[in-house]
Amino acid sequence: MSTPLFPAASFAALRARLAALPVFDENAAALAAARQGQLTKPPGSLGRLEDVAVFMAGWRQAERPRVETAQALVFAGNHGVCAQGVNPYPQEVTAQMVANFQAGGAAVNQLCRASGAVLQVVALELDRPTQDFTQGAAMSEAEVLAAMAQGAAAVNAQADILLLGEMGIGNSTVAAALATALFGGTAADWAGPGTGADEAVMARKITAIEAGLARHAVVRGDALAVLAAFGGREQAAICGAILAARMQRIPVLLDGFICTAAAAVLEALGVGALAHCLAAHVSAEPGHARLLEKLGKIPLLALGMRLGEGSGAAVALGVVRAALEAHNGMSTFAEAGVSGA
Amino acid sequence: MSTPLFPAASFAALRARLAALPVFDENAAALAAARQGQLTKPPGSLGRLEDVAVFMAGWRQAERPRVETAQALVFAGNHGVCAQGVNPYPQEVTAQMVANFQAGGAAVNQLCRASGAVLQVVALELDRPTQDFTQGAAMSEAEVLAAMAQGAAAVNAQADILLLGEMGIGNSTVAAALATALFGGTAADWAGPGTGADEAVMARKITAIEAGLARHAVVRGDALAVLAAFGGREQAAICGAILAARMQRIPVLLDGFICTAAAAVLEALGVGALAHCLAAHVSAEPGHARLLEKLGKIPLLALGMRLGEGSGAAVALGVVRAALEAHNGMSTFAEAGVSGA
Repeated sequence: MSTPLFPAASFAALRARLAALPVFDENAAALAAARQGQLTKPPGSLGRLEDVAVFMAGWRQAERPRVETAQALVFAGNHGVCAQGVNPYPQEVTAQMVANFQAGGAAVNQLCRASGAVLQVVALELDRPTQDFTQGAAMSEAEVLAAMAQGAAAVNAQADILLLGEMGIGNSTVAAALATALFGGTAADWAGPGTGADEAVMARKITAIEAGLARHAVVRGDALAVLAAFGGREQAAICGAILAARMQRIPVLLDGFICTAAAAVLEALGVGALAHCLAAHVSAEPGHARLLEKLGKIPLLALGMRLGEGSGAAVALGVVRAALEAHNGMSTFAEAGVSGA
Repeated sequence: MSTPLFPAASFAALRARLAALPVFDENAAALAAARQGQLTKPPGSLGRLEDVAVFMAGWRQAERPRVETAQALVFAGNHGVCAQGVNPYPQEVTAQMVANFQAGGAAVNQLCRASGAVLQVVALELDRPTQDFTQGAAMSEAEVLAAMAQGAAAVNAQADILLLGEMGIGNSTVAAALATALFGGTAADWAGPGTGADEAVMARKITAIEAGLARHAVVRGDALAVLAAFGGREQAAICGAILAARMQRIPVLLDGFICTAAAAVLEALGVGALAHCLAAHVSAEPGHARLLEKLGKIPLLALGMRLGEGSGAAVALGVVRAALEAHNGMSTFAEAGVSGA
């Protein structure tokens, strides 16, 4: 049905394939919207639950879409920019947390169990961090494409929805660098405390981002080159997974600041590559609300979460499930013998 | 353990019993908060999920509280003020919707199934609407106390959390009248479109509320008398259920504008009667955000819902479950061998 996107030999080859992304099925969405109007409730009274049901219908091409399989993918990577002292945690924590995910002990494990998502963790060459972006490009074009392909390959074609998350000590610095390079403003506009940076760490984050922006000024305006410049592998894998999901009409729940900053690379390609993505939540990380505004995405949840790992996406899956249960299971006014207005 | 509140012979007798409500267990909450600080995540990074876990711990008196039984109670009543043309739907819809709840076809049925709540509907003398509050007190003291007792009796003492909702054509007018009488301002400040009032219906709502306020001016300042003046039975039952839950340390998820306006009657008694209640969501009904502000409650969800029935509480139960799954199931840094900051 759809041309596979990966492997791609170059950014140019990949970009050429993005011209024909599957689009929202307006007919299926219209059928779902008409059904919403007949259910035993005042029209519109389920608010965003109604929007989510119609959104799912359009992407899944079904008047009554179901989520039988929900896949959660957490990509993990390490970052050379940690050499600049941008994170209070040692870099070993990335691998330790991957082990924690695999043992079932992290937040995202519990939250996926609670909402019925199958969690899979993909560790991306943790013993080979990307290059420090203050010193050079974080990744080569080939490295970016390889990580994207790995992200794409991890997507379960049978999934009805895909939840995306990440883990990587230092990656809130990477995310802020990506956001600044893509949307402008200063590093201070986009950088936040992440896992809990104090004033000194914050200052080093901002200095590192500004240094990276100065070094890679030439790539701004070329989103995939921006991704290569600042990294990391988990951001590239998230982009690959979003695109693979799109090819299979699988809607995506984006998690927090770092996941959204990765997705923003695709948005900057100007082909509507995030049309099948919902913003699961708005993080406490201050740049996230601004980023969602740039992407025109209204988050489903605002719970002050700032953990990443796909934790917000896992909680938001509960809202999507609620939306579809109501949409699929409610009686119509006619079925229930309830009088209209 | 605790003195039963009902039956109560008079408002005065009930008020006297409210002096000794069970309070939040600070010790259990402190143990839960300490546990949160050891889990494999940056401190505070689960945001409100952490707050909810600590809240549940304090009320359930357990470091790791569980929700095994979640009870949802929907109280239904009819309102004499419908004679003033305050609602576009005919009053028969209340009983038709009760039948729909019982047949499993309404939104709240699906949403309770999605989040794992056991739904029970309590219809309160639907064939005997309260008196039109523009003409006299909606209920007598005895009628209020009887409905409160019925609400209290419906609470399952084995529940770990209670979700409250309501159904009653015309009851957004009742809610706006209660809010105006309790908190001041004009009827127009508190009245909203409800199930979908057009301009003419809105004008009649406001006229009816102003007429009621003028007629019952003398009761303002006496919250239980305000409840009697404006009704209805489902509001009184909600108050009774909240109090019964409190006596058994069962936390409560309040639903939307109408449920919250009922609860506000208890808040106005000045004994902290809503300390065990969470605001599940903020409704699209404009008075709800204002009401939550008056009660000092920050809603868990903001999904533009405005259906009532306990629908928002049912969705929010998913957030409470997520909070407890994370709290109870995550590994500590020591257990997982993850390095700290």
